[in-house]
Amino acid sequence: MERSYRLIISCPDQIGIVAAVSDFIASHQGWITEAHHYTDPASQWFFMRYVVRAASLPFGLEELRERFCPLAEEFRMQWCVYDTGIKKRVVLLASKQAHCLSDLLYRWRSNEMHMDIPCVLSNHDDLRDYVQWHGLRYYHFPVRTNDKASHFAALEQALIDSEPDVIVLARYMQILPDSICRRYPARIINIHHSFLPSFVGARPYHQASERGVKLIGATCHYVTAELDAGPIIEQDVVRVGHHNTVDDMIRLGRDVEKQVLARGLRFHLEDRVLVHGNKTIVFA
Amino acid sequence: MERSYRLIISCPDQIGIVAAVSDFIASHQGWITEAHHYTDPASQWFFMRYVVRAASLPFGLEELRERFCPLAEEFRMQWCVYDTGIKKRVVLLASKQAHCLSDLLYRWRSNEMHMDIPCVLSNHDDLRDYVQWHGLRYYHFPVRTNDKASHFAALEQALIDSEPDVIVLARYMQILPDSICRRYPARIINIHHSFLPSFVGARPYHQASERGVKLIGATCHYVTAELDAGPIIEQDVVRVGHHNTVDDMIRLGRDVEKQVLARGLRFHLEDRVLVHGNKTIVFA
Amino acid sequence: MERSYRLIISCPDQIGIVAAVSDFIASHQGWITEAHHYTDPASQWFFMRYVVRAASLPFGLEELRERFCPLAEEFRMQWCVYDTGIKKRVVLLASKQAHCLSDLLYRWRSNEMHMDIPCVLSNHDDLRDYVQWHGLRYYHFPVRTNDKASHFAALEQALIDSEPDVIVLARYMQILPDSICRRYPARIINIHHSFLPSFVGARPYHQASERGVKLIGATCHYVTAELDAGPIIEQDVVRVGHHNTVDDMIRLGRDVEKQVLARGLRFHLEDRVLVHGNKTIVFA
Amino acid sequence: MERSYRLIISCPDQIGIVAAVSDFIASHQGWITEAHHYTDPASQWFFMRYVVRAASLPFGLEELRERFCPLAEEFRMQWCVYDTGIKKRVVLLASKQAHCLSDLLYRWRSNEMHMDIPCVLSNHDDLRDYVQWHGLRYYHFPVRTNDKASHFAALEQALIDSEPDVIVLARYMQILPDSICRRYPARIINIHHSFLPSFVGARPYHQASERGVKLIGATCHYVTAELDAGPIIEQDVVRVGHHNTVDDMIRLGRDVEKQVLARGLRFHLEDRVLVHGNKTIVFA
Repeated sequence: MERSYRLIISCPDQIGIVAAVSDFIASHQGWITEAHHYTDPASQWFFMRYVVRAASLPFGLEELRERFCPLAEEFRMQWCVYDTGIKKRVVLLASKQAHCLSDLLYRWRSNEMHMDIPCVLSNHDDLRDYVQWHGLRYYHFPVRTNDKASHFAALEQALIDSEPDVIVLARYMQILPDSICRRYPARIINIHHSFLPSFVGARPYHQASERGVKLIGATCHYVTAELDAGPIIEQDVVRVGHHNTVDDMIRLGRDVEKQVLARGLRFHLEDRVLVHGNKTIVFA
Repeated sequence: MERSYRLIISCPDQIGIVAAVSDFIASHQGWITEAHHYTDPASQWFFMRYVVRAASLPFGLEELRERFCPLAEEFRMQWCVYDTGIKKRVVLLASKQAHCLSDLLYRWRSNEMHMDIPCVLSNHDDLRDYVQWHGLRYYHFPVRTNDKASHFAALEQALIDSEPDVIVLARYMQILPDSICRRYPARIINIHHSFLPSFVGARPYHQASERGVKLIGATCHYVTAELDAGPIIEQDVVRVGHHNTVDDMIRLGRDVEKQVLARGLRFHLEDRVLVHGNKTIVFA
Repeated sequence: MERSYRLIISCPDQIGIVAAVSDFIASHQGWITEAHHYTDPASQWFFMRYVVRAASLPFGLEELRERFCPLAEEFRMQWCVYDTGIKKRVVLLASKQAHCLSDLLYRWRSNEMHMDIPCVLSNHDDLRDYVQWHGLRYYHFPVRTNDKASHFAALEQALIDSEPDVIVLARYMQILPDSICRRYPARIINIHHSFLPSFVGARPYHQASERGVKLIGATCHYVTAELDAGPIIEQDVVRVGHHNTVDDMIRLGRDVEKQVLARGLRFHLEDRVLVHGNKTIVFA
Repeated sequence: MERSYRLIISCPDQIGIVAAVSDFIASHQGWITEAHHYTDPASQWFFMRYVVRAASLPFGLEELRERFCPLAEEFRMQWCVYDTGIKKRVVLLASKQAHCLSDLLYRWRSNEMHMDIPCVLSNHDDLRDYVQWHGLRYYHFPVRTNDKASHFAALEQALIDSEPDVIVLARYMQILPDSICRRYPARIINIHHSFLPSFVGARPYHQASERGVKLIGATCHYVTAELDAGPIIEQDVVRVGHHNTVDDMIRLGRDVEKQVLARGLRFHLEDRVLVHGNKTIVFA
């Protein structure tokens, strides 16, 4: 993959933004390989993602940022430039279930997903061997009854030490405390095993079986302090019927969960997800 | 389509039901063309649907019923035999929106759906011409402010007069009173424009847009006295994104709604749906 | 829907196209509501679709075209501006089967699809009443054995007289002669009842059943002189199984066909489809 | 999972088969937990799959087979009884690509798939470490230019030594010689990276990109001597667009391939697939 800069912008909509930005890029002979815009009609807010070949520009990342600054200020942009040459640091949180973790590790070791994994953190020791076979660090922070606080304290410190760009809850099964949620806004990605907002909370497949739905699903979303209520990145469903037990649903659900999580994380790693209130713009 | 009898059975599970039923059919040289069984493991309740060629049996429907009776009693069956030569009478309830109604009328006039339509009932007059072009009766019962009761009284009487086997709410948009719900248990089919149990009640596409879901859906279910909570027959979804307005969702949703309603109604017309508590067995 | 201009561009890729076009629009205070770009990496060909609010510009369509001309020449663009205030003229060709035609007529009469239908042409008289109920003209050109030529001569003349922007083969079931194909390049849309390139030619559902596939599909494509080989606009599939007869496939296929045709035609009517060689760019 | 016997039957259709079989089971107090029948209308051939709790019968597998024999002869059945207590032996053939292999190994080690894996055979050594981490044997049989025969001779001998019930080509990328194909009829399962019969042979994603299709797929099928033409077990598709390169298709296709292969193999392991000519009955 050729090295590129990804320019991500959101700002109040007005005439001339695209002209100003594309003019800026073109004036430096920048070669745009992908371009997406969107204006939210309700809020009149503008969103943009440009991918520019790094080699086409006569300067590096720092100078690009410097030169872009005045334009960004003129349009009151929230903006970022990402260098595809720098992999994002993704800390994985897991518990006992391996399906999402295994899937992400496969995508990492086969170079399908461009990320570094500083470590895997877990409240159980079950997946240590598998993770370590990959040459990755594995930290086990047990959850003691009546003392969740010390688990979360250790976890938070380990997160801080790992300097993550993204934290992925790969079926981690614990509700993160507010302090961690607030420390990493729009940077903690969870996979919920239901088609949200149906079946919020625990045991969604049991709830789905009870209700007799004909499709079950999974939802990849950013974690906020409110449980299962953060901005949705990606969802998908699979058909079930009366003959499917809860165990069948759990098995079928695993395949949807890992697919949806992988797609959602990929969107995030490629800087395709822009958060706007409690919703996402996904330039897929 | 060759004339057949559909034998629908549910009863407490025990050894020998299938043997007894298939033996009964075989002893009269009955030719089975479709067979489905299912036992619900939680309740140990057994469900069965057999289709037998009418011409293969040496007697008619009445004698079939008589001869089957002792066996049904032995196994404490709830049972029914339907003759495919007798079309079900389907009363359609509509409002102003034509998409579901048009779709069902197309399937009726092209003989895709084997049903008789004694009449179409509506709280608006908008669709009269279209319905009457098909040679069908159309009754308009307006809903007067502060007097819903007289609308529903007229509606209920018209339903009774129509002797319906099934009532289809083809986007009828009014909540039926309890009396009508209870008069026709598991015989009123509604299409709800969301992927239930998400977004119960009014304006589900607005709710879906607000929540930022990535799939919207539709649910075909039997109507019970509790709003949008009856047994689900069929569901499906369609992908949406940040760029889709509520109007887009309404438009995309129409296509899912009519497909899901048509599939659900077809299942019902073919006696494929067995209700068990608040869930359905669908022998599709 | 607010009146807009749709600017559709394709040209050799080079730096500065987006800047030049967006600068042109911005310099006249044009308000862009949708923007799509794409560069085909193999051919280095650039494609663009901009939607601009008509009321935001200080001049009308003619002056817009005139003022844009120099820029278009500079970048050697193939380009077009469409006024959403002018509905496209869509001539429908049908045969005996009503499902696609009924579906399109519903979308037309409910204002879901913005088009004018100057007439419906058919080689059979079956659908006359239904079409005429809509207040539309219906012409019947029978196909006589050993004299297809006179059918096609009459058809071609009727097409010419109707001044169509688009011609839709809504299950017309005849192979158009070369002269008609060539007269309307990328303007004749067909719905083929298979997942092309599988099962080219006649009786695709019979072929699919013979091969034992587990999904059947439909393909909406532009018609070229080579049978079933033109640029694909849209496709979709539906699951089938061993228990589905060819008749079942035909029935299930109808639902996919009409959905795929409606989506493909909508893309075309909204000027979202750009043809590039034998492939399409669809700015959906 | 409780131990069960799976009774798989195919025979010419006639009246009384179900009665005879269910009577046989019931007469021994056998408890049927799953039952599927199907008659192919064209060939009038009957197919059946019954699952009976082992503990409900007063005898073991051998006696069940003995006692069933006369009935099987009477109806000229091709039949089999499988004991779910005996895992099927699945030999995996792989090459360099890990996605299908990794996916199957995960499902094996998490007990999602009930099978024994005597060994993994490959024409490359790349996946040895990963396979051996699982405690499984890995044999590397390189393919030497101008001497494919010795590769296949070694492979065939290793297969014979492994006494496989099923052989899975998990993206093995070599065309098996006739001798191996014929030795294991309906027991070699391949995953083809296209929606067959489209794009038979090599580089299907390149072919798909060239043709401009809007969906790509994968096909799980039994291997016969004719390339990519054996009975299809399962298929699925994923949406692509003009912006997807061949590399994107390869990446997206991997996810479909592994899902389709896992579903097809699961059907086979659960004795749900009955081959009839070049088609399958899948009692899913």
